[in-house]
Amino acid sequence: MRSRADAERLDAEDPLAAFRERFVLPKVIYLDGNSLGAQPVATRDRIAALSEQWATGLVRGWDEWLDAPRRAGDAVAAVIGAHPGEVICTDSVTVNLYKLAAAVHTDGAIVAQRRAFPTDRYVLEGLAEARGAELRLAAGEPDLDGAGLVVWSHVDYRSGEIADLPGITWRCREAGVPLIWDLCHSAGALPVDLATHGAELAVGCTYKYLNAGPGSPAFLYVAHARQAQLRSPIWGWFAQRDQFDMERAYDPQPGIERFLAGTPPILAVAAVEEGARLTAEAGMTALRAKSVALVELLIECLPDAVALASPSDPARRGSHVAVRHPDAERLTAQLIEADVIPDFRTPDVIRLAVTPLYTRFVDVWDAMDRLRALLPPS
Amino acid sequence: MRSRADAERLDAEDPLAAFRERFVLPKVIYLDGNSLGAQPVATRDRIAALSEQWATGLVRGWDEWLDAPRRAGDAVAAVIGAHPGEVICTDSVTVNLYKLAAAVHTDGAIVAQRRAFPTDRYVLEGLAEARGAELRLAAGEPDLDGAGLVVWSHVDYRSGEIADLPGITWRCREAGVPLIWDLCHSAGALPVDLATHGAELAVGCTYKYLNAGPGSPAFLYVAHARQAQLRSPIWGWFAQRDQFDMERAYDPQPGIERFLAGTPPILAVAAVEEGARLTAEAGMTALRAKSVALVELLIECLPDAVALASPSDPARRGSHVAVRHPDAERLTAQLIEADVIPDFRTPDVIRLAVTPLYTRFVDVWDAMDRLRALLPPS
Repeated sequence: MRSRADAERLDAEDPLAAFRERFVLPKVIYLDGNSLGAQPVATRDRIAALSEQWATGLVRGWDEWLDAPRRAGDAVAAVIGAHPGEVICTDSVTVNLYKLAAAVHTDGAIVAQRRAFPTDRYVLEGLAEARGAELRLAAGEPDLDGAGLVVWSHVDYRSGEIADLPGITWRCREAGVPLIWDLCHSAGALPVDLATHGAELAVGCTYKYLNAGPGSPAFLYVAHARQAQLRSPIWGWFAQRDQFDMERAYDPQPGIERFLAGTPPILAVAAVEEGARLTAEAGMTALRAKSVALVELLIECLPDAVALASPSDPARRGSHVAVRHPDAERLTAQLIEADVIPDFRTPDVIRLAVTPLYTRFVDVWDAMDRLRALLPPS
Repeated sequence: MRSRADAERLDAEDPLAAFRERFVLPKVIYLDGNSLGAQPVATRDRIAALSEQWATGLVRGWDEWLDAPRRAGDAVAAVIGAHPGEVICTDSVTVNLYKLAAAVHTDGAIVAQRRAFPTDRYVLEGLAEARGAELRLAAGEPDLDGAGLVVWSHVDYRSGEIADLPGITWRCREAGVPLIWDLCHSAGALPVDLATHGAELAVGCTYKYLNAGPGSPAFLYVAHARQAQLRSPIWGWFAQRDQFDMERAYDPQPGIERFLAGTPPILAVAAVEEGARLTAEAGMTALRAKSVALVELLIECLPDAVALASPSDPARRGSHVAVRHPDAERLTAQLIEADVIPDFRTPDVIRLAVTPLYTRFVDVWDAMDRLRALLPPS
């Protein structure tokens, strides 16, 4: 077992340590950045500036705001290994998944993970019912036989387990089955490299590791080669070519903007741009290295009474781990009283996320120390 | 022709005059509140408070935020004549219209106005194509023969003409045809009284007369009696009964929340609540009376060289008028240089909106005076 001094030394040697000062942080140990990320100082300032721009510039602000979903999208693209012009920020993960899934599914079974995040499952349940298609919920790898669409989470929202993105992408491409990646728990948490692996479709959220604030708009990714042939089921004016030439029939833009729908929430879209830029500045390789080191320390310091419910191999884990304890709910409440904020999932899981932009090694050490103090001596 | 002193007297007698101080206003005459409303002081403060709540409270803010779409919806309900629990704030007008239209249309023609706001037309074009239904674009009153859905704007976005909401609602009910009202240009601009007239379905935006800021979420209204039988095509986790009991199949909430989808943008939803409350505090009857008086003054002061392109009967006009001039685009630019902000629509229309919460009679007088100065003497 390492000591707190070891954790202090790791912080002193951490090349990303200065990024913590770029956040507005309260005096708690925050291990729930996988639910809602912390607030970057730049984002606080940008929200204030946009609020003032609305007040003083009024409608003239739209000259600058019209391109905001694309600008934020390009910022996210730099974090997930996509090219400029392949990502747009608008709507929620739910709505974006609906748009993409309805656009690419023509017939055949809809395949998803049994343990997918509920909203993904609900969207696909609804689409399957509307299309009269089979919804196939897989326990392990996707069964592509007769499949017309696969939706897969890159990082499992409970266990933090990383799916084999290169392998599943390859198999789906070989089988000619459209595949949508859900990057909610991986965008900003680990390198994704969509283009490198030939992944063509993805959605993801921005209020977790991209730190864009409560309910900030999601992103939607379509590789350049697929854009022109896909059409959103929701035809809206922000997707229209020559948007203000209002008398024409629907004629969507050729690029990623064709997946926009209505007017996007401008303050929230700008927060995505700021959060993604900060992440890109730190660099996903450095963030991933620190994330792995933080989780390793966390697991090393984990009290014996709680069981790791995540893969033991660091290469197969995202930036959070799940641990189990019969009294998980009570322990979560007690940790919060002790100024450590994790996340409880029924019935017996505590999720502990590290967010290398602002989590310190001493935070991990102290959190585990406080957890240990809540348990009977082993 | 009245004098500026007459306008000053009208301001002195205006029972709503004090509401202007509740807004953060730049030194311009703003006649484009039908595109983007001005910023209430309370909203500026609420955005700042929520930004801080995110930074300092982090994920714990969700205890309060989960009900935000319903709270904002109830605030909007008070302005449009709906009951508490009949309105929800989330997504955009485009997405909300898609959800409602897809939920109520089963077969038959989809009927809309030829001059509907483009995004309404696009949504219905897309739905008609997906359903193999006829899209019938009407020049006058809706033809209900063989109709399976009617979508109608309460106030025309160009001319400001008010549709016969009681009459069309009655005819559609008699014929058994579902009817969705688009309230974008009437919510907050004039009394709507949905419940009184038996209107059961509506959508509308909040960044115009409800002053909730750029891209603020739209609202969606379903009368209590219709809620349980309707199902959104987009099945999302914010619609789910017992949202955090995550292992169950989709089972939507019985009330209006079943039309939620993904995580709503919290800062923007709160801005809707503030804007709608301020409107309700002033009262729609008083706001309408002042709006009519402001528009009457505007028309009286209109230079001879520009032609009114809105109904001449005040009872048939909303809170904006359209005027025509061959040089409308140049005049709009020159008005903006003269610190008067109207709105230009191709090819020859200038829209002039009065927003009785913050527009003064002298503003209208001065704006028309400056417009007259830009035209050759008649």
